[in-house]
Amino acid sequence: MRYSQLFGKPVKEDQGGSEMRSHQLLLKGGFIAESVAGRYFYLPLGWRVHEKIKAVVKKHMDAAGAQEMITPTLHPLELWEETNRTSTTGFELMQVTDRRGGEFALGGTAEEMMVDVVRKRQVSYKELPFNIYQFSTKFRDEARARGGLLRVREFVMKDAYSFDRNEADFESTYNQMADTYTNIFADLGLETKKVEADGGYIGGDYCHEYQVETPIGEGTFFETPDGSYCAHEDVAEFILEDMNPDEEIKDKITAKLPIEVCTMEDLQAHFKMPKWRFLKNVVYRNITTDTFVIATIRGDLDVNKTKLERVLNLTGQLESATEEDLKRMGTKPGYVHAWGHDAYYIGDLSLKTVRNFYGGEKTDTTDPQNVNYGRDWKCDQLADIAVAYDGATAPNGQKLVEKIGVEVGNIFQLGTHYTDKMKNATYVDESGKGVPYYMGCYGIGLGRTMATIAELYNDEHGLKWPDNIAPFQVYLAPIGKNPEVYTKADALYQELLAAGVEVLYDDRQDKKSTPGQKFGNHELLGIPYRIVLSEKLGDQVEVVARADGEKKEMSVTEAKALVTTA
Amino acid sequence: MRYSQLFGKPVKEDQGGSEMRSHQLLLKGGFIAESVAGRYFYLPLGWRVHEKIKAVVKKHMDAAGAQEMITPTLHPLELWEETNRTSTTGFELMQVTDRRGGEFALGGTAEEMMVDVVRKRQVSYKELPFNIYQFSTKFRDEARARGGLLRVREFVMKDAYSFDRNEADFESTYNQMADTYTNIFADLGLETKKVEADGGYIGGDYCHEYQVETPIGEGTFFETPDGSYCAHEDVAEFILEDMNPDEEIKDKITAKLPIEVCTMEDLQAHFKMPKWRFLKNVVYRNITTDTFVIATIRGDLDVNKTKLERVLNLTGQLESATEEDLKRMGTKPGYVHAWGHDAYYIGDLSLKTVRNFYGGEKTDTTDPQNVNYGRDWKCDQLADIAVAYDGATAPNGQKLVEKIGVEVGNIFQLGTHYTDKMKNATYVDESGKGVPYYMGCYGIGLGRTMATIAELYNDEHGLKWPDNIAPFQVYLAPIGKNPEVYTKADALYQELLAAGVEVLYDDRQDKKSTPGQKFGNHELLGIPYRIVLSEKLGDQVEVVARADGEKKEMSVTEAKALVTTA
Repeated sequence: MRYSQLFGKPVKEDQGGSEMRSHQLLLKGGFIAESVAGRYFYLPLGWRVHEKIKAVVKKHMDAAGAQEMITPTLHPLELWEETNRTSTTGFELMQVTDRRGGEFALGGTAEEMMVDVVRKRQVSYKELPFNIYQFSTKFRDEARARGGLLRVREFVMKDAYSFDRNEADFESTYNQMADTYTNIFADLGLETKKVEADGGYIGGDYCHEYQVETPIGEGTFFETPDGSYCAHEDVAEFILEDMNPDEEIKDKITAKLPIEVCTMEDLQAHFKMPKWRFLKNVVYRNITTDTFVIATIRGDLDVNKTKLERVLNLTGQLESATEEDLKRMGTKPGYVHAWGHDAYYIGDLSLKTVRNFYGGEKTDTTDPQNVNYGRDWKCDQLADIAVAYDGATAPNGQKLVEKIGVEVGNIFQLGTHYTDKMKNATYVDESGKGVPYYMGCYGIGLGRTMATIAELYNDEHGLKWPDNIAPFQVYLAPIGKNPEVYTKADALYQELLAAGVEVLYDDRQDKKSTPGQKFGNHELLGIPYRIVLSEKLGDQVEVVARADGEKKEMSVTEAKALVTTA
Repeated sequence: MRYSQLFGKPVKEDQGGSEMRSHQLLLKGGFIAESVAGRYFYLPLGWRVHEKIKAVVKKHMDAAGAQEMITPTLHPLELWEETNRTSTTGFELMQVTDRRGGEFALGGTAEEMMVDVVRKRQVSYKELPFNIYQFSTKFRDEARARGGLLRVREFVMKDAYSFDRNEADFESTYNQMADTYTNIFADLGLETKKVEADGGYIGGDYCHEYQVETPIGEGTFFETPDGSYCAHEDVAEFILEDMNPDEEIKDKITAKLPIEVCTMEDLQAHFKMPKWRFLKNVVYRNITTDTFVIATIRGDLDVNKTKLERVLNLTGQLESATEEDLKRMGTKPGYVHAWGHDAYYIGDLSLKTVRNFYGGEKTDTTDPQNVNYGRDWKCDQLADIAVAYDGATAPNGQKLVEKIGVEVGNIFQLGTHYTDKMKNATYVDESGKGVPYYMGCYGIGLGRTMATIAELYNDEHGLKWPDNIAPFQVYLAPIGKNPEVYTKADALYQELLAAGVEVLYDDRQDKKSTPGQKFGNHELLGIPYRIVLSEKLGDQVEVVARADGEKKEMSVTEAKALVTTA
């Protein structure tokens, strides 16, 4: 590609974008351009990277025996109604109606579509397992787009769906996909952690995310030093210890408490006691039923809404209560009682680890003390609804370390979650009977993966793409005014193309295109090698490796050999 | 690929589909499956073909210097409003609103999007021309889907957009794309005609369709025997001759005409005169303004609605009037007058080729005779609104031959049609001034191309894919019960894979999988070679070429060499 003809060149000015370095560099380098918030063009340079990432994913998926196909983008809404996902994902599912009144969802994920195409065919147990996948544009009506390509409203996702006979067979499919994912990301230069996670609206019993540790991430997970336990904050478990097992259970009393002592910090300061001594109540509103849920937890811990929703089977349906909501309940912030309101009470397991809690029924002047779970009050339900914390004890006995990462992929056990709900989603077993498929699904967002690589591979001058996904392998940069240099560069360009090397040839000869301009562009674009020709270099060329900045003079023949075998 | 594990196998039963052979075979072979009318899954076999077609298109586009990129699927509706296309394409443009009230069009074509991304960048005349393209899903809210993949509601289109300095430069871009298209289709086994066509809602001054002649087509075009004139019926011109130049102009009279003489056939029979002697009036309703247009034409000719709409600048806005409409005009079928109704009268140029027309003001008992255009009446406008016919004289003096074809691609001159309407859609010229880009656009529907190839390449047994787009190169078919045969086949399968040959290995050993079953599958799927192993063949194999059915026994080594170099 001749640089002069490239559409979507790097630009001098910073292009804004978010605070993320990858976002700034992708915009400035001319890899992407924003259409409207959360929707991006991939310009020719960016699309080359995207398609190379796609090729790496495809190579590994095919090697694992998965079969590429494609579903329509518009999913008949009646399929999503069969599985009841129109309500649970309603908030981010885009819908469209055609001129004949047909209702469709703009595909977010394709479980229903894949089950639908599979169930329409007669499949024998002998043909199982199979794994079908696609690369297709997915739509998410996100409230907030974020971080350039990290959280967008449409993106290309590789989504795969496996069909097995039963749980035992599925486990080997799942493990194979887990290994495939590790390999895909490793091939893309990303070290990933396989993190236990929450399935959200996808359903199923368990799933894992592939997290790349980076401070720009929006996911928090916890890992033990040996890596044997690794879980997202939405599912991470930790061992609760009794806080004061030797303390004598005392009689509950109603003690005076000044009106100004209200928050957890006030209580700590007033009583000079640790947070765990106090009861904490967090109120949520169920947006479907407009009723209230009160989560009660030990004062030093926090409620994890995802855990809470999962326990209550209310995924996506709880919102933090507003002051207005509290008013409707007849209370206000700091005065929510651990019992007695018209609400569903769910307590964290930590309520059983403290003897003689303080709090639970605050009035303007009083609050109880020595409140004991079971003796003095009970919730409607007790469950693990607490978020883990750095230093908590993992189930394996080691200490949890808190980490931040970007989720670049995920794998889900689905079991018969979809095939039970959708009629005739069965294969034919040995006896001729129809048995629901046992399923899994597996996603990778290509744009997010690209952004994550860009975030990890850059320096103060620009990007440093790994060789296998760089948009070009060589940035050919003749410099100076001597026309002979450009004639030589033309010849080298043709020779490199003939050898199958991808070259971006900076053929500009105008005054503004100084060596500094050209070298800066090369560094911004992150192309593995720069080959410089100049009058001063004579018959030699200078080869600069972007990865480590190493510069070497060599003959044209040596340079060709170097970049051809690279 | 092991046949046993293939998802989307051929099926025994006919799958219905339309009357088109390609549609039946693609369904029966397991290449595609219908989701809902006009929306298809491409199953793994079909997707392999689709992606190979895509690769051929990409190869030629890249060789022509075009640069692949991608636009978002959802186009901000405000862009379509800038060019006023929301109204002209409203009938087939799907729209969607997001949770924040943002309005979007589901991309049908991407002129506005491409202009938008280009105008946001500072582009100098030195960087022109460039041609940017994408492969992306397009949506058309078609009233009627048809013919399997031929007319669908969503499909992958390659759409390219060129940006030039001016008309002269554009012409060479346009010609280069025209040649590229011919080469693409030739590479795909399709002989195409470059046919002058109507641009419809795309706009621009001229365009060409690439038509493949086949009776299943839905496009009619006219060609002269030497091919020097080739035009779609919507634009085809023909030379009008004076029908009775020697006849004396007579006085107009009001003659008696019995009530039962009403249609063109009635008139012919009653007067024993040729059709050209009579006036024909065709009524249309403008659906935007709810007013009427009456097209008057010589009785032997027919009105072409597309020509009519283009002349009136009312693309997509005219509908044939109903009896109800005629009633509102105060008339009925057979009684529409060539003057006097509350309507816009447009006459075909043929009105000037006849002396002493009959008709124009029919009552229950009378109709005028010897009506002469200019003397007795005038239309609001005269223009070429007639459809050509087989045997008409082309502008080059040769006879037109009517042909039926499928439009597999099209190329459009756009000029400044978009860049004049969209603000700042300019490049910077030598003097630093902003000049609107001179554009063209170029489309190929991949699914329709695939269906057309399937329609042309088949026989009574099934498909016969050209080698370069066949889903696999070899169908490996061990037959019989001898396990040694299958061991040998396993080994050959691995060797072929190692040699980079795409093999569909029919590894089935059950009773139902007879030689007839396997051979039939091979023929249905249209894979170029079948390699048969059997006890009887011993160390030899039988190689069957699907193209001509030729069978040859040979050694495994010879077979490998044959299919590896094929």
